[in-house]
Amino acid sequence: MAKEITPRTEDYSAWYNDIVKKAHLAENSPVKGCMIIKPHGFAVWELMRDALDVMFKKTGHVNAYFPLLIPKSFLSKEAQHVDGFAKECAVVTHHRLMNDPNGGGVVVDPTAKLEEELIIRPTSETIIWDTYRNWIQSYRDLPLLINQWANVMRWEMRTRPFLRTTEFLWQEGHTAHATREEAVQETLQMLDVYAEFAEQYMAMPVIKGVKTPNERFAGAEDTYCIEALMQDGKALQAGTSHFLGQNFAKAFDVTFLSKENQREHVWATSWGVSTRLVGGLIMTHSDDEGLVLPPKLAPTQVVIVPIPTAQAEVNEVAEKIMRELKDKGITVKYDTDDTKRAGYKFAEYELRGMPVRIAIGKRDIENNVVEVARRDTREKSSISLDNIGDSIQQLLIDIQANLFNKAKQYLDEHITRADNFDDFVDILENKTGFISAHWDGTTETEEAIKEKTKATIRCIPLDNEKEDGVCILTGKPSSQRVLFAKAY
Amino acid sequence: MAKEITPRTEDYSAWYNDIVKKAHLAENSPVKGCMIIKPHGFAVWELMRDALDVMFKKTGHVNAYFPLLIPKSFLSKEAQHVDGFAKECAVVTHHRLMNDPNGGGVVVDPTAKLEEELIIRPTSETIIWDTYRNWIQSYRDLPLLINQWANVMRWEMRTRPFLRTTEFLWQEGHTAHATREEAVQETLQMLDVYAEFAEQYMAMPVIKGVKTPNERFAGAEDTYCIEALMQDGKALQAGTSHFLGQNFAKAFDVTFLSKENQREHVWATSWGVSTRLVGGLIMTHSDDEGLVLPPKLAPTQVVIVPIPTAQAEVNEVAEKIMRELKDKGITVKYDTDDTKRAGYKFAEYELRGMPVRIAIGKRDIENNVVEVARRDTREKSSISLDNIGDSIQQLLIDIQANLFNKAKQYLDEHITRADNFDDFVDILENKTGFISAHWDGTTETEEAIKEKTKATIRCIPLDNEKEDGVCILTGKPSSQRVLFAKAY
Repeated sequence: MAKEITPRTEDYSAWYNDIVKKAHLAENSPVKGCMIIKPHGFAVWELMRDALDVMFKKTGHVNAYFPLLIPKSFLSKEAQHVDGFAKECAVVTHHRLMNDPNGGGVVVDPTAKLEEELIIRPTSETIIWDTYRNWIQSYRDLPLLINQWANVMRWEMRTRPFLRTTEFLWQEGHTAHATREEAVQETLQMLDVYAEFAEQYMAMPVIKGVKTPNERFAGAEDTYCIEALMQDGKALQAGTSHFLGQNFAKAFDVTFLSKENQREHVWATSWGVSTRLVGGLIMTHSDDEGLVLPPKLAPTQVVIVPIPTAQAEVNEVAEKIMRELKDKGITVKYDTDDTKRAGYKFAEYELRGMPVRIAIGKRDIENNVVEVARRDTREKSSISLDNIGDSIQQLLIDIQANLFNKAKQYLDEHITRADNFDDFVDILENKTGFISAHWDGTTETEEAIKEKTKATIRCIPLDNEKEDGVCILTGKPSSQRVLFAKAY
Repeated sequence: MAKEITPRTEDYSAWYNDIVKKAHLAENSPVKGCMIIKPHGFAVWELMRDALDVMFKKTGHVNAYFPLLIPKSFLSKEAQHVDGFAKECAVVTHHRLMNDPNGGGVVVDPTAKLEEELIIRPTSETIIWDTYRNWIQSYRDLPLLINQWANVMRWEMRTRPFLRTTEFLWQEGHTAHATREEAVQETLQMLDVYAEFAEQYMAMPVIKGVKTPNERFAGAEDTYCIEALMQDGKALQAGTSHFLGQNFAKAFDVTFLSKENQREHVWATSWGVSTRLVGGLIMTHSDDEGLVLPPKLAPTQVVIVPIPTAQAEVNEVAEKIMRELKDKGITVKYDTDDTKRAGYKFAEYELRGMPVRIAIGKRDIENNVVEVARRDTREKSSISLDNIGDSIQQLLIDIQANLFNKAKQYLDEHITRADNFDDFVDILENKTGFISAHWDGTTETEEAIKEKTKATIRCIPLDNEKEDGVCILTGKPSSQRVLFAKAY
């Protein structure tokens, strides 16, 4: 096995594709823009999904499942939504194939044309709010706190594994509330859940903020987001939480009888994260040797490699270590494959991002130690076999913390203030990262800056201080800085 | 709330629909044949999925994810498969909508026609075996043991919630092996996993068997199945496990270099269960009062209802019970909603199939007891507050066992031998259930019996004894009995 990973400094984009491929995370499929998520990549997503699902349920949400297909007419009901979502999507027009009368395999049966075309969901607000109309009559039916784990499809022109694919896996929360305040509170609560997940599980620090009107979700009154910074200095929108106001309730005529016996429109939120997070995870921690996984999202946290294999004493020590680790809830694999050399295995596990590798040699056993290699720093050390369970448990905690701290330091060092356009361009091109700058608040200026520099306003941070200043492009007055960056 | 469930004896089909609706399991969607799985129904499916997923992983399988869409040409590659699956399915022909130039909402953009139509997967053998071609080179790459949890779509004419829907959720295992023996063993292993799940979790006894050639999966050499019996005497195919031989390997050119350095075609299996199991669960245990859930698949196993609410002493006892139950891993809900009466709550929880209901009254507390109602027999009893955790834990075990035993007795009593065609018809119409009868082994006779009686051969049981006899229809010689039934 040759590693042959393009170094990040040489070609960051090629490096990313190499990691995805050589760490066996995903590959392209015969369907344009759709990826195959391989077992190792899917195991990472399963850990993400399971952790998020617990957090959603703790905050009172339940799961349900709504249809994959949406009647075309539904998409036009919410005026903004149709512009944002009804365009690039997969359209089902027929429901039958037939044998080609000319013998050319199967062809679409022209007589099986649908009366109304169906769209593969790009997101499910429309069909869910059409359903909520029947589920909500009174304030007693509220709040309705529902989440769905599903596949969705958006016909993207340029795709990249995990980061932007035509089909992707995600969760979409859709909640209904009696008051504006409660809906806003839910929107912010779920943003906090996302930020906590990103930082505590993915070890990926994020900035919580609100999008400008131009970057809002189609149909939302406010879109909140968590933004992370990748190692190439580009931002990644990692999750969004939308306050939808009464827009969908009005479009789908969803009303309730309030405590005061008044008929009112329902208030809505929606929020989602997707397999894009796997892309963010890769780009936050990985290095030129391969994938780096934080222990909390590693399908296997520890691998034990015997040197050489098939020695009774080595097996005995390995079994003892495995028992101690499993008792602590640590996932561990003992690699007894004798068709591969230890060196090959070391490289392969590095490539796959296994957080800790334990090598057991015969001389080690005589000295009552094993060699432990941590993936994050690639440091090796001798660790005593006494209380090895505790040592490894602590090491995993250290690795998780170290990955977060390293990424946090990188993020903190890459939020730079710019007070004029020349500095802005210079920082963007040479230092990269987020740029905190004044902006006059108009979509026109936002678009003009994007056109000149490819940088977009990633968000207005939630903890932003008010500060008088002037727009870096137009010189018009501004009351606060916003965060710009080039983004995925 | 009125229960208004149609009694089973009056109209079994209406009863089923009433349970699905009034126990809040699912409802029809605006898309023909597609259902919305409501939170209570989805929670049951989640428990099924989680239990099965553990069993799959214990037997060495890993999860992955393959694309929703399949190029049309893939379906024609396996000759039998195309006849079985390529017909009634959703066809994606375009990838864009546009605003109607005449102002009529959105319309399909005729310029965005796909070069090759894409099919929403009715099952994934074709795209998976197209992928396996690149994953398998040598015997070292085998076995490949992969499962996928996914939505699939088959354009059904007549649909019923859970039992037969256009879109459904399922898992599909797709494994690749170096030898015929190993693949056959895998096929049978997964059949055992399904049978164990059905009996141990769903409390639904099943018969393991093999399908006749006529009922085989399109592209399989052998289809094994578990068959259950519903309360109306109709059979339900609850899961299938297919030995695919080398058919898909040959169709997609998947070969490997054997230990003996020979290039050979790979051997395959596939196996699946779906949300149809929820329908089977409903029809196995439920009664005229509503849903009955076995404790292992009940989203909430115990509900505590205070009478009256908002009494400090009652709350205190409830909290104590909850702690004891949670310590034992029992899921419990304390219903303190004071807008509803206890009687209303009792009926509602019966309807939803909650296995155990505990009512706490003030006089009960004085006597150091609570009233416990079990859903399966609807019996009530006074249970001491001392060691109530143990008592309830034992009660849940009893309920699980009782449901299985009751269903097993029903099944055993409804496998009837018939030795001539008149008896066959009489049993089928009057007693119902499975009929064990001789058949001459031809598809013609099988079809003829189906046409005359609507009964099909459900399976040839795996533990079948050889027995000489004559076919009930043709009088030709037969070497064993097979199981007939009307089926869902």
